[in-house]
Amino acid sequence: MTYCVGMLTSEGLMMLADTRTNAGIDHISTFRKLTVWHNPGERLVCLMSAGNLAVTQAVVGHLQEMMASPNVDQAKTILGAPSMFAIARLIGDAVREVRRVDGPSLDQGAGGFNASFLLGGQIAGRELRLYQVYAEGNFIEASEDTPFFQIGETKYGKPIIDRVMNYRMPLVEAVKVGLISMDSTLRSNMSVGLPVDLMVYRRDEPGIWLERRFQEGDPYFEDIRNRWSDALRESYRAIPDLDLSDAEPGGGPSA
Amino acid sequence: MTYCVGMLTSEGLMMLADTRTNAGIDHISTFRKLTVWHNPGERLVCLMSAGNLAVTQAVVGHLQEMMASPNVDQAKTILGAPSMFAIARLIGDAVREVRRVDGPSLDQGAGGFNASFLLGGQIAGRELRLYQVYAEGNFIEASEDTPFFQIGETKYGKPIIDRVMNYRMPLVEAVKVGLISMDSTLRSNMSVGLPVDLMVYRRDEPGIWLERRFQEGDPYFEDIRNRWSDALRESYRAIPDLDLSDAEPGGGPSA
Repeated sequence: MTYCVGMLTSEGLMMLADTRTNAGIDHISTFRKLTVWHNPGERLVCLMSAGNLAVTQAVVGHLQEMMASPNVDQAKTILGAPSMFAIARLIGDAVREVRRVDGPSLDQGAGGFNASFLLGGQIAGRELRLYQVYAEGNFIEASEDTPFFQIGETKYGKPIIDRVMNYRMPLVEAVKVGLISMDSTLRSNMSVGLPVDLMVYRRDEPGIWLERRFQEGDPYFEDIRNRWSDALRESYRAIPDLDLSDAEPGGGPSA
Repeated sequence: MTYCVGMLTSEGLMMLADTRTNAGIDHISTFRKLTVWHNPGERLVCLMSAGNLAVTQAVVGHLQEMMASPNVDQAKTILGAPSMFAIARLIGDAVREVRRVDGPSLDQGAGGFNASFLLGGQIAGRELRLYQVYAEGNFIEASEDTPFFQIGETKYGKPIIDRVMNYRMPLVEAVKVGLISMDSTLRSNMSVGLPVDLMVYRRDEPGIWLERRFQEGDPYFEDIRNRWSDALRESYRAIPDLDLSDAEPGGGPSA
């Protein structure tokens, strides 16, 4: 599996992806699932993917091919499209193209055609956007009300985001929430694994972004893991115990 | 969906189940999923169920029928079986019997035959046991190494248990962890809902147990929810920020 989470805040964008892929428990590999395209000062586009690796690689490959091809209308490429909306469309088109070619064979197997994407970024002078693109090629956009999207193995890491994440929180806090959410997923599901790739982008600064890979043993990530575990332990201990002293024979046998 | 969690500790047993069932988003009902059978001072048996409600009710109904029938060998009933292992077998047999009758029709529908159970309890003079019974009728037993089982919508509530629960923790703490895990699930998944049923049993006291239903607005459950949310918020704020000050143009366009 995979776990990717993207968060849109008033300050900017945070994209976080693990790198584990597995085809059965004895075939585990590391693949990068976070890709950044960049035209200095003009645009920053970040794509993360989950699902069948052959499908998601084919989609990214198709998008790269388009950019490299001299005969393609540049408005139909990631680095030439006029808007993030247009780029989301391009990704949707690429997914549909891959489905056209590979879908029929995949549908005969157990896994089926399976892919989803998170797309975030900004073109200078336009709005910062975050989209989730489905296997069907259509997509939805994040908003102040729903400022985050997850793909892949999403459930373990959702409660912490549901409780604390919001659009107005500082970007560095969103990064922390994302890393805690990732750590919860890593601990509870073996099919999601380190290293983890992080991309942080500040709104309206399309020339500057931060990419960071957290390897096993990364001091900051280790520190988060330890502090978070300690904090959870202290937090539940601080909650008063339920009074069990009045436990008496219960409601009688229900049989 | 459903969320049930059972925890075995050195002090006793904690069983916790929500009560929501749904057949489509517009058909939501409340059904008790936690059943206690009790022979004062001699045995305490608690069963929780998840899956197709018609299946799990049929299983429980079958077990009740056996007890009520004058012609049945009492050793083949929940209140007469000689051990918790034998009771786990009875439940497995009941699941197989329901599958024999209803399985073929269910397998033709979209849902299929779907049921799982957590069985905990003790017979005086024997060990306290916790089992998970599968839809196939076979089962596994909890141990000091793996002292908890979950069924139903298990993922949202797993990270907190993975991090803090252990066999040696006081029973009241296990209750808190269970309620926090339930709250995480309630918040992240609409198909799991209040009220929540709790059964607490202290090892070697088969005459005494506590049953408690937490309704919407229950002061203790509300207090846990609020304190836990506050604690999480404070905890992630206390984690040092990732240093983003050295963010410079990233690794260059990967395209």
